[in-house]
Amino acid sequence: PDMLKAKVISIATSIMKIGQDDPRRLIHSMKVGLALTVVSLLYYARPLYDGFGVSGMWAVLTVVVVFEFTVGGTLSKSLNRGFATFSAGALGIGADYFAGLFGKQGEPIALGILVFLLATAATFSRFFPRIKARYDYGVLIFILTFSLVAVSGYRVDELVVLAHQRLSTIIMGGATCMLISIFVCPVWAGEDLHRAVASNLEKLASYLEGFGGAYFQSHEDDGSGVVSKDGKSFHQAYKSILNSKNSEESLANFARWEPGHGRFRLRHPWKHYLKIGALARQCGYQIEAINGCIDSDIQASQEFKSKIEGSCKRMSAECGKALKALSTAMKTMTDPSSDNPHVENSKAAMKDLKFALKAASLEDEDFLAIVPAATIASILVEIVKSVEKISEAVN
Amino acid sequence: PDMLKAKVISIATSIMKIGQDDPRRLIHSMKVGLALTVVSLLYYARPLYDGFGVSGMWAVLTVVVVFEFTVGGTLSKSLNRGFATFSAGALGIGADYFAGLFGKQGEPIALGILVFLLATAATFSRFFPRIKARYDYGVLIFILTFSLVAVSGYRVDELVVLAHQRLSTIIMGGATCMLISIFVCPVWAGEDLHRAVASNLEKLASYLEGFGGAYFQSHEDDGSGVVSKDGKSFHQAYKSILNSKNSEESLANFARWEPGHGRFRLRHPWKHYLKIGALARQCGYQIEAINGCIDSDIQASQEFKSKIEGSCKRMSAECGKALKALSTAMKTMTDPSSDNPHVENSKAAMKDLKFALKAASLEDEDFLAIVPAATIASILVEIVKSVEKISEAVN
Repeated sequence: PDMLKAKVISIATSIMKIGQDDPRRLIHSMKVGLALTVVSLLYYARPLYDGFGVSGMWAVLTVVVVFEFTVGGTLSKSLNRGFATFSAGALGIGADYFAGLFGKQGEPIALGILVFLLATAATFSRFFPRIKARYDYGVLIFILTFSLVAVSGYRVDELVVLAHQRLSTIIMGGATCMLISIFVCPVWAGEDLHRAVASNLEKLASYLEGFGGAYFQSHEDDGSGVVSKDGKSFHQAYKSILNSKNSEESLANFARWEPGHGRFRLRHPWKHYLKIGALARQCGYQIEAINGCIDSDIQASQEFKSKIEGSCKRMSAECGKALKALSTAMKTMTDPSSDNPHVENSKAAMKDLKFALKAASLEDEDFLAIVPAATIASILVEIVKSVEKISEAVN
Repeated sequence: PDMLKAKVISIATSIMKIGQDDPRRLIHSMKVGLALTVVSLLYYARPLYDGFGVSGMWAVLTVVVVFEFTVGGTLSKSLNRGFATFSAGALGIGADYFAGLFGKQGEPIALGILVFLLATAATFSRFFPRIKARYDYGVLIFILTFSLVAVSGYRVDELVVLAHQRLSTIIMGGATCMLISIFVCPVWAGEDLHRAVASNLEKLASYLEGFGGAYFQSHEDDGSGVVSKDGKSFHQAYKSILNSKNSEESLANFARWEPGHGRFRLRHPWKHYLKIGALARQCGYQIEAINGCIDSDIQASQEFKSKIEGSCKRMSAECGKALKALSTAMKTMTDPSSDNPHVENSKAAMKDLKFALKAASLEDEDFLAIVPAATIASILVEIVKSVEKISEAVN
């Protein structure tokens, strides 16, 4: 019983955590419950015309399958489903009519061949990256509806009635989903993408702002040259950026389906976010490399480090500030002052570093001890360049 | 008409390309067509018992929705669908019975509340990463079936007959998919994962093997110190590794559902591949950093480079060979000789590099010109360590 109790508590905590991480999840769950209840009761309460009893099922099915977390996802699936059902239904009726020309024996064979060809072609089309990204679900529903209609064995005039009923129930289900997802606490994919990209820049910024202090400080404190423990833990947030590509792409895909909302127009340049996201990832890779160098077991010489400390600290701090300014500008959607002073500052610091390196007298240094610090300096130079590119992209 | 012709040709070429990139895609499309035709004709040919006409539709629906590219995907979806339909059907009948206790007026209200609660709870559970990864589709079907059964308005005894029919058609559809996907040119997710991870190691290897030559060679040739054009194009294959996380994880998820096949046992340690994959990505980030340094506009001094050339070339070449050996060992599933000589060689080269650096006299060098080469050397040291970790993980 104690173990059971502990298990229950641990499950409860993880439920709480998932809810607290993003309260919209709980709201989304309740929205799905609401949509399903509304459609179910409609379907339960009015078997208005005979066929509706069975067709009404399609409304429930549509709600369950179509309701996604973001508005864009729901719209994309609803519209895909609607259009695919309509076109496949029409094509299916045509196929039925065509197969009927072959007489009683020929009909099943002709239908079989048609279903095979169409299913093969449609499935293959799902491998095209562009179709996969936007119309995957529509193609699935197309195959489904075409096979169902073609093989239903109904006569054409019966089919038209059935198709009308089915389409109307699907529209009802889809419309319920769309209305609830747009008007009840909407979760906009575009806004999420916007926020995700901005917060990625911020994560990079807080690493860079913290880096200078942590790397040079802790050496001064204990003089042991081992910074790894401190340096490793002080900011791991940037790691999530490294694998952000897929989620950003799917958000951008959904965002394209969304109507204008809040501060976003209908044709907001969503692709531009992907570009900024890619540059941020690039910068993340460089930070990952720096992080690796911090852990390096070759110990850096204190003397040399103090020579580059000033300019390196300034470079990373200014880069951090520049990124933070860009992130804030994105969040507030103000135009970032086109000549971001921090970018210029960091470039000036980079020049200082170059002078410091040129001037450094190395006669009495152990060269091996210089390499790690030099590496970090040189990666910082690359980071400055990345930040400049990001800044250009944001403008 | 010329434009139309050009368009048709370009579409045809891209179709050819997608088919040639992976011929299994065409085979997969034909397998889906086959499964659908088989099930459709069964459904068309025998309206065996009255209800089958409508229930048979579920067989078609199951095939369309459940048939995935890999065996693991198909199995996972089929089993999810089967179990979810069964359990949700049972629960739905229970809910119907329970709601019936509230009398004619109370029944719809009780049903509405039940549907709302269950849909909310089930939707929320889809946010748990573990459920999302393995049972996402099952939960969806669970919500669907429960609502359909609960709200169908049939009496309990009618429902049992209906449930039996529906379950049997779903099993028929699922079984058709499973049989065709396992026995007709199967595409095993596990094998794909195995091959993807091994080929990622190989991509890293070919970059590293080419790197030493390209970086040091081209400098000797033109003496201009600008290697970027050469250095950039000579291998971009490794870039695909950086974003491989999601696809590896989904393959590993599917692989878990697969029965033993070929050289893989039932409980092959699929998670281990994810570990190797993560290490390979780590190494990829470092290569990305090196690639950045090659493009650096600070020109490296030829003299210093020649000092570290020997050991750096050896380090990267030996790392490349070590990775290639590991990749081959994975592919052939032989035990890599536990003391991979190339790893030892690269470590020896690393020590040589350290001696070379210690011995380097720097009096007459421009220090700034040393930094880029030193950076590359020091990242190579990190790569040697990564390769050692990968080698340990593969063993």
